[in-house]
Amino acid sequence: MASSIDHPMPATTWGLALQLQDPPKGPVSLRIARGIVQEIERGRLRPGDQLPGTRKLATQLGVHRKTIIAGFLELERQGWITSSPAKGTFVSLELPETAPEPQRLPARSSLPPLEATAHEQLILSGGGPELSILPRAALARAWRRALLGRSSARLLDHGNPRGEPRLRQALADLLIRNRGVRAIPDNLNVVRGTQHGIYLAVRALLQPGDCVAIEALHHPSLRGIFQLAGVKLLPVPLDDDGLDVDALDLLCTHNRVKAVYTTPHHQLPTSVTLSGQRRVRLLELARRRGLMVFEDDYDNEFQYEGTPVLPLAFSDRSGAVVYFGSMSAILAPGLRLGFIASSPEIAERIARYRTFVDQQGDQILESAVAELIEDGELERHVRRARRLYRARRDELVQALDRHVPGLVFDVPRGGMAIWVQAPGVDADAWARRAHAAGVSFQPASHFALEEPPCDFARLGFSACSEAQLNEAAQILGRTMLARG
Amino acid sequence: MASSIDHPMPATTWGLALQLQDPPKGPVSLRIARGIVQEIERGRLRPGDQLPGTRKLATQLGVHRKTIIAGFLELERQGWITSSPAKGTFVSLELPETAPEPQRLPARSSLPPLEATAHEQLILSGGGPELSILPRAALARAWRRALLGRSSARLLDHGNPRGEPRLRQALADLLIRNRGVRAIPDNLNVVRGTQHGIYLAVRALLQPGDCVAIEALHHPSLRGIFQLAGVKLLPVPLDDDGLDVDALDLLCTHNRVKAVYTTPHHQLPTSVTLSGQRRVRLLELARRRGLMVFEDDYDNEFQYEGTPVLPLAFSDRSGAVVYFGSMSAILAPGLRLGFIASSPEIAERIARYRTFVDQQGDQILESAVAELIEDGELERHVRRARRLYRARRDELVQALDRHVPGLVFDVPRGGMAIWVQAPGVDADAWARRAHAAGVSFQPASHFALEEPPCDFARLGFSACSEAQLNEAAQILGRTMLARG
Repeated sequence: MASSIDHPMPATTWGLALQLQDPPKGPVSLRIARGIVQEIERGRLRPGDQLPGTRKLATQLGVHRKTIIAGFLELERQGWITSSPAKGTFVSLELPETAPEPQRLPARSSLPPLEATAHEQLILSGGGPELSILPRAALARAWRRALLGRSSARLLDHGNPRGEPRLRQALADLLIRNRGVRAIPDNLNVVRGTQHGIYLAVRALLQPGDCVAIEALHHPSLRGIFQLAGVKLLPVPLDDDGLDVDALDLLCTHNRVKAVYTTPHHQLPTSVTLSGQRRVRLLELARRRGLMVFEDDYDNEFQYEGTPVLPLAFSDRSGAVVYFGSMSAILAPGLRLGFIASSPEIAERIARYRTFVDQQGDQILESAVAELIEDGELERHVRRARRLYRARRDELVQALDRHVPGLVFDVPRGGMAIWVQAPGVDADAWARRAHAAGVSFQPASHFALEEPPCDFARLGFSACSEAQLNEAAQILGRTMLARG
Repeated sequence: MASSIDHPMPATTWGLALQLQDPPKGPVSLRIARGIVQEIERGRLRPGDQLPGTRKLATQLGVHRKTIIAGFLELERQGWITSSPAKGTFVSLELPETAPEPQRLPARSSLPPLEATAHEQLILSGGGPELSILPRAALARAWRRALLGRSSARLLDHGNPRGEPRLRQALADLLIRNRGVRAIPDNLNVVRGTQHGIYLAVRALLQPGDCVAIEALHHPSLRGIFQLAGVKLLPVPLDDDGLDVDALDLLCTHNRVKAVYTTPHHQLPTSVTLSGQRRVRLLELARRRGLMVFEDDYDNEFQYEGTPVLPLAFSDRSGAVVYFGSMSAILAPGLRLGFIASSPEIAERIARYRTFVDQQGDQILESAVAELIEDGELERHVRRARRLYRARRDELVQALDRHVPGLVFDVPRGGMAIWVQAPGVDADAWARRAHAAGVSFQPASHFALEEPPCDFARLGFSACSEAQLNEAAQILGRTMLARG
């Protein structure tokens, strides 16, 4: 662990090496970042070596200093370099890829490869919220009030593993008002985002060796959670009406299935909605077979047309549904907040398990967000976001029609992404070509447990401006077919 | 889940029942709380019933309204009642004790029984920080700056599971400066408190069936973590020099011990410090036997006399030490923040595991606390707290000498609690008597895996004023011996 940062390497040698990158591909900041990684991999930059200043490097390479900073920031996020305001920027003493892959940990599939998180990249993956419209000033005021207000001694102390009662009450009111889910504070658990909620539920409710049915296409980070808990996943086919309930029924005949995981509102990744008939049959099946239904309603708020679709939890009479909601998807991924509505018995098991995992949530933040709900700020924000995302969906639809001839897709009535088919195109190869040209998106293989439908992909639109969506569609059109 | 809150029960019947409590024991707010619980258990108050208003009840019982509010708050924290500003206070639809005890979850020993968390109770358990001296205004300003500043888009987004780089850098600087631990951002993991850190480390580094040696007396919440991971705990004896390293060596001869958990600085609960000779031998043993050393340095800052004791991590050359530090113990338990310093390989495993558990920490809070460290606010706060706790230790020592004759103890040179022996007294029974008289403390049995030394107890002093400590000592003196 001893530092060797006192012998900076000459910046000129290294600057020259970077310029040799040829042919130029992708945004400049990424080419610089890639160049630095290559220099490290070649051993020309060693752990502890100092990098030249951003100003100097910008002059040397003839680019704007911001571009260098963006490249450095990316490298720092990925652990290649570390920087300190006073001392400068150095190659990390321990580099990302030198860490041995532990045997029993699943691949960290939720973390994108080097280029995917870069700043100039047009990112259609994920479909996260637009951060610029977050009501930051209101949130900062509410946080300050929670910290300095009359409940602060309680909020700063050990508390309830189920979450701050004020937020649970606010969420219960919101759920009854907007989604018809009859929640009360006693059957809610506030958690730190859907991932955390599912982790806790899986650990608290399932045993190693249990089987869980899951939509054949799903968010890949789920797999690791189930795998760590020793739970076997069984894929269930999907079609235009969502999860195939007959297939699930058959699966249950041949396996001891304990729970089914589903995203009925806007299926992730296909954005299809579970049909009314199947909703009824799924709940009936769950009751008959004693299945738990993990309903992940991650983007309930974002329905643009048609009558609102109520959660399965709305119709559940048997207490089978464990309902996951996300505040991170509404506000910001960095504000880790979500909730689980379930039977009081399940809520209690999850809370007990949580005391061992991380004891409790961030009570000050929970109280602050409760205030945003109470005074209507959150619903105003959701309305703004909904208008914005609808306009972005429409823009992407038009831009795809214009620039990507041959692409097949239904216009989703809600959600944050469009599921597209490029008939006959290898979507993985397309994603690689688009990526090199500056657009990131996720091909179907990203979401598949077994053999994926190879010419499908998911294009998220919520976090890109209309201009960016247009530019992205042009690049998608240019890269869809391999040249040759 | 249907609510039955529209038929409030007459307040008078119920008010009368409360007054029948006899003989009066403990603070009034707690007697009221206990009375309500008894009414619920007797079935006279049913789930969904509305409770009378605090004003009305205060008048009726002839006590101050604040006392009623304190009782209600306690009941709400424990899940017996729920309240909503607009509607009033109701008996919870699902009561705490009606939830079935899940088979495979360990007892939630970290949660105190009904009376232990009440407001009038003088609490010598735990030894948490004094919340009134927290620099709240500075923290709120720093949080606001993080949320509105130029890094906010990054902080609000998905981030590094190891924690915000700015905080890791600030912690690394602090650790080198104050504890001689050569940390760099690459071998630090920011976590949500020590409990969370140990959970992640146990899950990421140990396998079901592994054995872990643990100080025979330890914080009881640890047991659940190891138990959930299928890890077997083997107690190691303690004496005035801390962990008995010879006994540990012998234990390793007969068992495949993978790690040892220790609190060498101020052993929890005994407050003894691991001697210099044993420190050297423990590290030598760890190297020789390939043991990991989980060093929990939860209150490093609070040393009042003598030369500062450096962590084992300071002397570790082999990468065996996994070093846990707490910010929650310095700032506030409700601000869940801690860190782990370890070898880069271990740091990477823990970070990977974390991506499945809760993805990442609270980056805005992490950035805000980094600012408090950078501008010296945190160290100023620690100096204030240290002066305060030393004065409180001295006050408790004097008060015990004055009011509890026969009590045997060493004055600890640091830490947040005094470990006392009441020769021949059953400490469990003493704790129950003291509790009924308004003082909470933890007898040795609370910390013991096997047979406890039955006449020892831990008296925390850090979170009580000098007047409270004095009053508590008087009650301790009165209750030490059973009457009869």
